[in-house]
Amino acid sequence: MSFPPLDVLTIGNAIVDVLARAEDDFLATHAMNKGGMALIDEPRAEQVYAAMGPGTEISGGSAANTAVGVASLGARAGFIGKVKADGLGTVFGHDIRAAGVAFATPAAADGPATARCLILVTPDGERTMNTFLGAAQSLAVADIDPAQVEAAAVTYLEGYLWDPPAAKTAFLAAAEIAHKAGRKVALTLSDSFCVDRYRAEFLDLIRSGTVDLAFCNEAELKALYETADFDTALVALRRDAKEAVVTRSEKGASFVTSGAVVSVPAVPVERVVDTTGAGDLFAAGFLAGYTKGLDPASALRVGALAAGEIITQLGARPQRNLLDLAREAGLIS
Amino acid sequence: MSFPPLDVLTIGNAIVDVLARAEDDFLATHAMNKGGMALIDEPRAEQVYAAMGPGTEISGGSAANTAVGVASLGARAGFIGKVKADGLGTVFGHDIRAAGVAFATPAAADGPATARCLILVTPDGERTMNTFLGAAQSLAVADIDPAQVEAAAVTYLEGYLWDPPAAKTAFLAAAEIAHKAGRKVALTLSDSFCVDRYRAEFLDLIRSGTVDLAFCNEAELKALYETADFDTALVALRRDAKEAVVTRSEKGASFVTSGAVVSVPAVPVERVVDTTGAGDLFAAGFLAGYTKGLDPASALRVGALAAGEIITQLGARPQRNLLDLAREAGLIS
Repeated sequence: MSFPPLDVLTIGNAIVDVLARAEDDFLATHAMNKGGMALIDEPRAEQVYAAMGPGTEISGGSAANTAVGVASLGARAGFIGKVKADGLGTVFGHDIRAAGVAFATPAAADGPATARCLILVTPDGERTMNTFLGAAQSLAVADIDPAQVEAAAVTYLEGYLWDPPAAKTAFLAAAEIAHKAGRKVALTLSDSFCVDRYRAEFLDLIRSGTVDLAFCNEAELKALYETADFDTALVALRRDAKEAVVTRSEKGASFVTSGAVVSVPAVPVERVVDTTGAGDLFAAGFLAGYTKGLDPASALRVGALAAGEIITQLGARPQRNLLDLAREAGLIS
Repeated sequence: MSFPPLDVLTIGNAIVDVLARAEDDFLATHAMNKGGMALIDEPRAEQVYAAMGPGTEISGGSAANTAVGVASLGARAGFIGKVKADGLGTVFGHDIRAAGVAFATPAAADGPATARCLILVTPDGERTMNTFLGAAQSLAVADIDPAQVEAAAVTYLEGYLWDPPAAKTAFLAAAEIAHKAGRKVALTLSDSFCVDRYRAEFLDLIRSGTVDLAFCNEAELKALYETADFDTALVALRRDAKEAVVTRSEKGASFVTSGAVVSVPAVPVERVVDTTGAGDLFAAGFLAGYTKGLDPASALRVGALAAGEIITQLGARPQRNLLDLAREAGLIS
């Protein structure tokens, strides 16, 4: 197949989020790590779903959210990920295409159902995620169309893809295709527990240059280098990574290389409703700016704007047009 | 089956809402009546869904929303309505039970899919609804358990039930059971286009005393009596109905009988996000107060509070506990 050029192609788990409000007690009773993402099997998914409150279903998936954010900022975005041909799979496909993202991965005809993430949002806006990977696990090398990867300036991979075994191979194949075409490969570390599971492999991806641009938040960075000290971890990252973006919630964010650190403050937010998608949308904003040729500080500012917007609403898909917001803020012309 | 006593049992279409933001242009292009509810078939549902933006799925259905509102106000609520045993049917059943509503109607094993309502929310917060009735159409007399109706102080029926032919019979059977048990029957007129379709029958239900308590908004009232003059319509309603509640958006609401009119103002709202469910939740608040033995003005105030709350959020299922809000406002002890 031939593909039109893309600014950003993201590859990740195709997931529909089921969001419900919950008290902190609920997390304790159900042995959940507040703020983290746990992989759960189908029986556990049924048990958590039965216990949780009324839900709101919104398409999600970390890399998919990033692709939607990139498109909302007026850049050309694509997504590769696996759903099943079922009700939630239809919802996922509709939503990402309706957001202007190219999505051509064929849905699985059989096997497990479309992935869902049961997200408990506590009164402080923090989200605790329980993911049943379902059909997303079957993403394989055959789903990576070389022509689409070659047509994308940046191919962005989520660390969560390291969980489903077949996806890992697809991930590495995509990186190789991208590099052969002179394109860049980005990786988000996704979650500190994910980093704990795959520390050595993530470090190897970064140190070997398989990844050109790494995204992480403070907790993920500390987990990567097994230190409680942010500055120690940052020094290590600057030594290991070609380029990296580190987000620190209300403390702002930085773009780092071995030679430089560029930092910007967070965008102030009146009321945090739900932090789901903050990291995904920061990456979207940065990548939209980066592929547009903005300088690192300006690209970071677009990231901070997108992240600040997404936490004022429920779910990780922007309800307002981010390009309009970025233009109002004078960040993109 | 034996059922615990209920304050309010609602019977209606079991529907999952798919909400998306849209510009007014979109409504015009797709020949939709702004603010109304249109019944659509499956091909039209697919066409509208393909054209509309990314969605948020939240359980809905007018009478189901009312039952959830009643439960959120601490009263005992039940719901009867038909889903299919499919993905959205599971979502509907989970959500209404998780909200504390008794829901025992068996899901259809085959036939059309669970009903969905494609709701376009324009920038002014107004909602325009396109309903594919699907499995909800197969609600039948066999789904009405006499014991549950007998156990409910008020059985509340939605006018939309007049659309699926089998449901009409179920509706009348429920009203008869309720009256034989000395219970009350309430009806919402649902929508002015629905009133246009069934004017004579609705008037007959009200005049014959099949309905003890009618709910309508200003547009529905005018449609019922085919007049543009509110006062003329109100005089007619007071002549025909035993008891009625008339809502007038920001102009407040009234409880009327042949002998009296009691009015309360609307609850001021800072920012209207989505008017979906305003009428459903007004009815919930009024019925929760009414079955608790509050005087009409106080019951109207609970209705106004619940309606005011629901329009500040997306979807027709309250995200905050309405009993807490009613207690803060000093309306329910």
